[in-house]
Amino acid sequence: MTVNEAKQALAELQRKMAAYDHAMSLIYYDGTTSAPKGTAANRGVALSVLSEEEYKLCTGKETVELLEFLDANKEELDDKEKRIVYLLLKDIRNMAKIPMDEYVAYEELLVEADDVWHTAKETSDFALFEPILQKIFDTNLRFAGYIDPEKDPYDLWLNEYEEGLNKEFCDKFFNTLKERLVPLIKKVGEMPQVDTSCLKGYFLASDQEKLAHWLMRTMAMDLDHIGLATTEHPFTTSFGSHNDVRITTHYYEENVSFSMYSVIHEGGHALYDSGSADEFAYTALDGGISMGIHESQSRFYENILGRSRAFCNCVLPVMKALFPQMGATTEEEFFKAINVVEPSLIRTEADEVTYCLHVMIRYEIEKRVMAGELAVHDIPAEWNRLYKEYLGIDVPDDKHGCLQDSHWSGGSIGYFPSYALGSAYGAQFLRKMKEDLDVDALMAKGDFAPINAWLREKIWQYGCLYTPAEILDRVLGEPFDPQVYLDYLEEKCKAVYGI
Amino acid sequence: MTVNEAKQALAELQRKMAAYDHAMSLIYYDGTTSAPKGTAANRGVALSVLSEEEYKLCTGKETVELLEFLDANKEELDDKEKRIVYLLLKDIRNMAKIPMDEYVAYEELLVEADDVWHTAKETSDFALFEPILQKIFDTNLRFAGYIDPEKDPYDLWLNEYEEGLNKEFCDKFFNTLKERLVPLIKKVGEMPQVDTSCLKGYFLASDQEKLAHWLMRTMAMDLDHIGLATTEHPFTTSFGSHNDVRITTHYYEENVSFSMYSVIHEGGHALYDSGSADEFAYTALDGGISMGIHESQSRFYENILGRSRAFCNCVLPVMKALFPQMGATTEEEFFKAINVVEPSLIRTEADEVTYCLHVMIRYEIEKRVMAGELAVHDIPAEWNRLYKEYLGIDVPDDKHGCLQDSHWSGGSIGYFPSYALGSAYGAQFLRKMKEDLDVDALMAKGDFAPINAWLREKIWQYGCLYTPAEILDRVLGEPFDPQVYLDYLEEKCKAVYGI
Repeated sequence: MTVNEAKQALAELQRKMAAYDHAMSLIYYDGTTSAPKGTAANRGVALSVLSEEEYKLCTGKETVELLEFLDANKEELDDKEKRIVYLLLKDIRNMAKIPMDEYVAYEELLVEADDVWHTAKETSDFALFEPILQKIFDTNLRFAGYIDPEKDPYDLWLNEYEEGLNKEFCDKFFNTLKERLVPLIKKVGEMPQVDTSCLKGYFLASDQEKLAHWLMRTMAMDLDHIGLATTEHPFTTSFGSHNDVRITTHYYEENVSFSMYSVIHEGGHALYDSGSADEFAYTALDGGISMGIHESQSRFYENILGRSRAFCNCVLPVMKALFPQMGATTEEEFFKAINVVEPSLIRTEADEVTYCLHVMIRYEIEKRVMAGELAVHDIPAEWNRLYKEYLGIDVPDDKHGCLQDSHWSGGSIGYFPSYALGSAYGAQFLRKMKEDLDVDALMAKGDFAPINAWLREKIWQYGCLYTPAEILDRVLGEPFDPQVYLDYLEEKCKAVYGI
Repeated sequence: MTVNEAKQALAELQRKMAAYDHAMSLIYYDGTTSAPKGTAANRGVALSVLSEEEYKLCTGKETVELLEFLDANKEELDDKEKRIVYLLLKDIRNMAKIPMDEYVAYEELLVEADDVWHTAKETSDFALFEPILQKIFDTNLRFAGYIDPEKDPYDLWLNEYEEGLNKEFCDKFFNTLKERLVPLIKKVGEMPQVDTSCLKGYFLASDQEKLAHWLMRTMAMDLDHIGLATTEHPFTTSFGSHNDVRITTHYYEENVSFSMYSVIHEGGHALYDSGSADEFAYTALDGGISMGIHESQSRFYENILGRSRAFCNCVLPVMKALFPQMGATTEEEFFKAINVVEPSLIRTEADEVTYCLHVMIRYEIEKRVMAGELAVHDIPAEWNRLYKEYLGIDVPDDKHGCLQDSHWSGGSIGYFPSYALGSAYGAQFLRKMKEDLDVDALMAKGDFAPINAWLREKIWQYGCLYTPAEILDRVLGEPFDPQVYLDYLEEKCKAVYGI
C-alpha cells in the first residue's frame, strides 16, 4: 500500500464511521422525538447490531494496520491528516481494549436505561433506576480499568470529555468559584426580591414555537441545515456531518423562558457544530472538540448574549407581539426577571450565579461514587444533603432531585464539570471579543452575524483540529482565569440587584 | 458447520439485515418528516455507505454459502425455515447479479430523485425531473436485464411487487374492469350531482389531528407500536420489525376528508404490517407479503369499511364534536359526500369507482416506456391524453398530472397495478367475511376488533410465509374474480345515486 492509497482508504473509513454515527444518532433522536412509546426494545436490536458492526469496523485488523501504517509515515501527512490519525488511533486503541461483547452490552444497557430513567423520573422512583445506574457506574469503572489501569478512573473520564481535565484541576477550579460565589449569593439573598411576574402566565406552545423560530433566524442559524424538534429534555445532535444538525426544546405553557433559553443554548451548540470547515465533513475533524468548549459556546449564547441587557431591547418587542399579556413590561423589568438569582432545584433552569453550585454537587457525587466512597443507593440522600448545604433548599422528591438529568442514564460520567468550565471560558471569550466588536450595540439590534463570524474564525472552523487548550490559547493569548468569570457574575448582580 | 449452527447464523444474518433496514428506512422517514430542507445530500452519504454494507452482507461469500448449505439440507428445516431460505436466496441471487457500484449508485440516485421530484412537483416543472426519471427507467430496464435477461423487463418488475403478476394478466384484468366501469361512470355522470358541501370549509389542522388519533384508536391500532407523523405525501413504513410501524398523513385545512381517509388507508397498511406473528420479528417472514395484498388491506379499511354507510353512524358524531360547522349534516348526506363519484385529477383523492382508471393510465404509461414505445420526454402529453380519453378531463399542469405520485421518484416501476388488484381482492374478502361477521353492525358501533381478528387470523399473522396466491386461496377457497369487485362498486353507486 502506498501512502496515497492509505489516505484514500482513510477517507473511506471515516465515511463509514460517519454513516454508522448518522444511523445510531438518528435512532436515538427518533426515540426521543417521535417514536411510539413501546418501541425501545426494537431500537435496541438495531443499535446493538450497528454498534457491533461499528466496533468491528473500528477495531478490525484492516483499520488498525491502516492507521498504524499512516502513523509510521507521519512525515508524509499534513497537519490535518496527522491529527485525524492521532484522534482515530486514540479512540480505536481505547475501544479495542474493551471486549466487544461488553461494548455491545453497554450500548444495549443505555437504550434500556433511557427508557427506565424516563419512567423513574416521571414517577419519582429512584429504586426503579438504581440497579441500572449501578450497572452504568460499574461499567464506567470497568472500562476505565481496561483503557488505562494505571489511571484514576474518574480522571480518565474527565479527560475524555475535556482533554487535560482531572480531579485536581476541578477541585481547585470549583473551590475558586465557591470562594466568591457563596458570599455573592448570600448578599443577593439579602436584597429585595426581583419581580418575575412578566415571565409567568399562559404562553401557547404554538406561539412559543414561533418565538423559537424567530430566535433561530435572529441568531443567523442556517435553517437549511439546522432543524428544531420537541423532546422531554432539550439537546443537540448531528447526523453524520456538520451538514445536518438538530436542536430540540420543550414548551411549558406556564413558563415562556424555559423553551426560549433552551433554544438559545442548544442553538449555540448547533452553531458550533455546524461551523466546521466544509472540508472536515465525514472526517474525525468534524464538529466540536470537547464538551467544555461546546458549553462555552452554548452558555455564551444563552447567558452572556441571551440574558444581556442589550438583547432585551431586541427580543422584548417580538415577545410582546406574540404574548400581549407582556404589553406593559419594560426592558428593565424583563432584564431583571430573566436574571433573577435564586437557589432552585433544577439545573437547566438555574440562574447564572447559582448554576455552578448545581454542577459542583453532581461533580462531588460522581467523584465519590467512582472512588467507592459513596454507594449508588445513597445518591438521593447525599444529593439532598448537598442541595441543602450549598443552596440552602430542600429537595421534595427525586424527580426534582437526582433523577432530573439525562446524563447518567446516557452513560455520561464526568461530563458535568464541563458546564461550569465552559461558562468560565465564555466570560473570558467575551472580554476578548469586546476588543474587536461592540457586542452590546450588536445585541441591541439582534445582529448576531459579526459575533458568529468572530467565533467561526477563531473556534468553529477548526472543528477537532486543535485541543481545547490550543483553542483557548489561540482565542485568548493569555492563560485561562476563572476570576474573569467571577467578575462577570458580580457585574451582572450589580446590574440586577444594585450590589 | 452443522445444520443447527447454520440456523443460528441465519438468525444472526436476518437481525443484521433488519438493522440495516431499520437505519435506512428511518433515514428516509426523517427526510420526509422533520429534516431541514438542505440535508438530502448528507442523507445520501449515509445511505450510500449503508446500502453498500448491506449489499456486501447479502451477497458476500459467507452469506451465499450459508443459504446454499441450508437449501441443500432442506429436509432438516421446518416450513418457516424453508420459506426464509427460499425468500433470501431469491433476493440475494437477484442482488448479486447487479454490480455493486450500480446498486449503490441507484440508491444515491433515488435520494437525489426524491429531492428533485419535490421541487419539480412544487413548481410543476417536468423538465427538471425528466433526466432523473429517464435514469430511473433506464436503471430498471438494465437491472431487469441483469436479473433475468430472458424475461420481459416490465413483467419482471410486476412480478416483484405481486408474485405471479404479468402484463397479460394486467391487460385482461384492466379490460374486465373497463368494460363495466366506463358505462357505470357514464350513467353516474347523468344523475344529479351529490352535495359535498359538508366536507368543505375550514378544518383546523390540530382538530384534524385529534380526529386522526380517534380513528387510530377506534381502528384498535396498538399505539404503543404504531406512530403518526406529518409529511407531504402519506405513507406507511416500519423500522426493523413489525414492532415499530409509522404512518403519516397531511392536513389540508380546507379539506377534512384527505387526512381522514389517508389515516384510515395507511392504518390498514400498519395493521397488516404490525400483525405478523411475534416469532417473525427480525426474520424475512416479517411484514406484508406483496403490494397487492397490502393494498387489499389498506383500501379495505379506507373504502369498504371507512366509506360504508354503517361507519357513518359511528364517525359523524365525533366529527360534529370537532367541527361544529357539520352540526346539521345528516348521516345520509355525509355518506353520499364521501362517496361522490366524479372524474378528477388526483389518484389519492379519487373516488372508488373512477380510481382504477387512474391506475390504468399509470400502467399503460409504464408498460409502454418499458417497452420502448413511449419516450420519457413524452410522458406528460400521453398522461394528459389518457386522462382526457378515460376520465374526460383536462390536466391543467404536470403538478396535477404526471408529477403527482412519489412512486417513480422512489424507483417503483410496476407498483401501480397492485392498487387496483388489491381493491378487487378486498371486495371478495368482504363477501367472505360477511359469512362470519355482521360487518355493518360492527361498523355502526365502530367495533373494529372482530374484523381485525378475522384478518389477523387469515392473513396478517402469516407475514411472508405464503405467496399472494396461497393467501387468496386460504382466505377465499375460490378463484379470484374481479366481477365481485364490480358488483360491489355497482351496489355502492346504487346506494349513492339510486341507479
